[in-house]
Amino acid sequence: MENFTHYIPTELRFGKGVTERLPEVLSRFGKNILLVYGGGSIKHNGIYDRITSQLSDNGFTLFECAGVEPNPRVSTVERGAAICKNNLIDAVLAVGGGSVIDCAKAIATAAFNDDDAWDMVLHSKPGRKSLPVITVLTMSATGSEFDNKGVISNPETKEKYSSVFSYPVVSFCDPTLTYSVPPYQTACGSADILSHAMEAYFSRTDTSEISDGIAETLMRAVIHNLPIALKEPDNYDARANLMWASSIACSGIPDYGKIYPGKTCHAIGHEFSAVYDSTHGEVLAILTPRWMRFILTKDPSVTSRFTRFARRVWDLTGEDGSGLAFHGIECLEQFLGGIGIATSFSQLGIDDRHFTEIARHADLRGRCSNSFVPLSENDVIEILRNCL
Amino acid sequence: MENFTHYIPTELRFGKGVTERLPEVLSRFGKNILLVYGGGSIKHNGIYDRITSQLSDNGFTLFECAGVEPNPRVSTVERGAAICKNNLIDAVLAVGGGSVIDCAKAIATAAFNDDDAWDMVLHSKPGRKSLPVITVLTMSATGSEFDNKGVISNPETKEKYSSVFSYPVVSFCDPTLTYSVPPYQTACGSADILSHAMEAYFSRTDTSEISDGIAETLMRAVIHNLPIALKEPDNYDARANLMWASSIACSGIPDYGKIYPGKTCHAIGHEFSAVYDSTHGEVLAILTPRWMRFILTKDPSVTSRFTRFARRVWDLTGEDGSGLAFHGIECLEQFLGGIGIATSFSQLGIDDRHFTEIARHADLRGRCSNSFVPLSENDVIEILRNCL
Repeated sequence: MENFTHYIPTELRFGKGVTERLPEVLSRFGKNILLVYGGGSIKHNGIYDRITSQLSDNGFTLFECAGVEPNPRVSTVERGAAICKNNLIDAVLAVGGGSVIDCAKAIATAAFNDDDAWDMVLHSKPGRKSLPVITVLTMSATGSEFDNKGVISNPETKEKYSSVFSYPVVSFCDPTLTYSVPPYQTACGSADILSHAMEAYFSRTDTSEISDGIAETLMRAVIHNLPIALKEPDNYDARANLMWASSIACSGIPDYGKIYPGKTCHAIGHEFSAVYDSTHGEVLAILTPRWMRFILTKDPSVTSRFTRFARRVWDLTGEDGSGLAFHGIECLEQFLGGIGIATSFSQLGIDDRHFTEIARHADLRGRCSNSFVPLSENDVIEILRNCL
Repeated sequence: MENFTHYIPTELRFGKGVTERLPEVLSRFGKNILLVYGGGSIKHNGIYDRITSQLSDNGFTLFECAGVEPNPRVSTVERGAAICKNNLIDAVLAVGGGSVIDCAKAIATAAFNDDDAWDMVLHSKPGRKSLPVITVLTMSATGSEFDNKGVISNPETKEKYSSVFSYPVVSFCDPTLTYSVPPYQTACGSADILSHAMEAYFSRTDTSEISDGIAETLMRAVIHNLPIALKEPDNYDARANLMWASSIACSGIPDYGKIYPGKTCHAIGHEFSAVYDSTHGEVLAILTPRWMRFILTKDPSVTSRFTRFARRVWDLTGEDGSGLAFHGIECLEQFLGGIGIATSFSQLGIDDRHFTEIARHADLRGRCSNSFVPLSENDVIEILRNCL
């Protein structure tokens, strides 16, 4: 078991009606609030009206940074930071999913920074000065409400970079706010949760039993609850289990004690979104089973990890060996094929023209060549071709 | 799934050699340190010498509150608080197990309090002023390194009370520091971890899937690793899994989203230690299987929770029903019977003379009458008799 540091100072308030306490929490910091949100879904589902009137009634002055992109751009970070600097903003309130929260964290840090915003993103380090960030989560996916990271894109350089900002001070996680998330986004978000858990799980470390058990628990929770949430969008328990799973999956907790496994699919997936602006979870759902088949074929020494996956996640039985290992992957494929999202790149209109570039970029920090089963650039290209 | 709040701001540094950074962390707060420790085992195993010379070499001035009891007494809290007040202590450093850490938290809060110390213990509330508490964990058991609670005893009133103090700012958890914990204490500590996980698990809420999966993971980790640690005291991975399990088990995390199950065995167990000064984990190991048999017989509607326990913790198979449910309890009994601690009160020289008093006190906050299967005072007495 490897050394690790656990430190997540965020206060996470989870459950029905928790946002009632939003004014009380915000008033710890001041009255000038920057509200950060995305493309306007919170205007259609009533969340925007509820929160803005709740805050105006309590004497807050709201400024807005709206229109955060699904892959938030550094230009939006600059726009938000300028509002903070010009209006003596006391706290940044993110209302949305992972993209909005990522962007809000970057804005809150950029508000203390006079450098070029993309430089700030690239020069990732913990403990940077930041305005307090408070989040109201409206989609279960990236876990940004419970970590200090944010992924920001630069369309000019076609780069997407995961940078360290600050932890949200308080995150409000009300599962009922996800009732209106459409099936497609629900499925993509859940595929992201699943991928976080799986990328932690597939590691060479077999001795970190608690991390493995937690990862299995998260995978089982998604596999059980996503189909329910797709059929009954307002099933509270299904939405609640997906929401709490999303926060833990990306928190680092399922990685503790394990050799950092590289998170190859996320590395490739991020490069993909930088080029195509495609939906993160959907790309992961396409990539992951192909990556699994490829590495299990390339390096049979990882078979026992896959048979454990088959037994403890999919409740399969039978003799250890590659049969059981591949059966686990088939179960995953069958699951991902039944949740209403694409199962191949061609369904997304993506061909192989950028594969070489994506494979090269994905390995920039050794996240492919130094991973669970080390992958060369050609290996990554082959996996991508298998996704067509 | 019920609402919950997650908030554990403690920075937990886990692994081999992490205490090397102790001076760096303490120097955030100042140079006057109160070192709190127990009966002297840290003097025999070298930890005391290593830490005191490490701190003297770095210019710290150390004061000592030694001799913290296994069930720490309010008089020791008073003694430690007086040292803090008289010597302008900057931070309290607990080096030990749960008792020492509990006591250090109480001392750190009492240092800001001029009331009677027992009154302070009884008037539990979060957010009280406190000196910073830093912990170096030397025994895996109560999880006090990762929560804000402390159990303090008052031998005069024969009471034992769990009070809310502050979270440790940083907890250093180095599994190698537990190599010298003798088999008896290792087993008692592990029984405590197991009990924390089980008391969270046996609840009427079936929908909090992540909490249930985490509790199962913790139970499996103890069941797998305790026998290894007993046979090979310096098996790093076994000690590491037990240590990380201890921190999570009592953190509240396995309870999230569940109807608070009362923690009946802990309630009874605390009253027991108040009367007999017996070892917490050993009493829990005696009580728990009897409690299980009693409630499963009294209320067969909880059978499905026990069959889940049998399947997912003990890997049993077979048809659902009371046979499988009791088989799970038998597995637990067999396990607890093989770890070298007492399996009955008579082995501890305890008879029934205080049972009525213990049963009455244990229910003071409804922890028996308002629990998973509600228990009357007579029920508790019957469970206690079954332990003789």
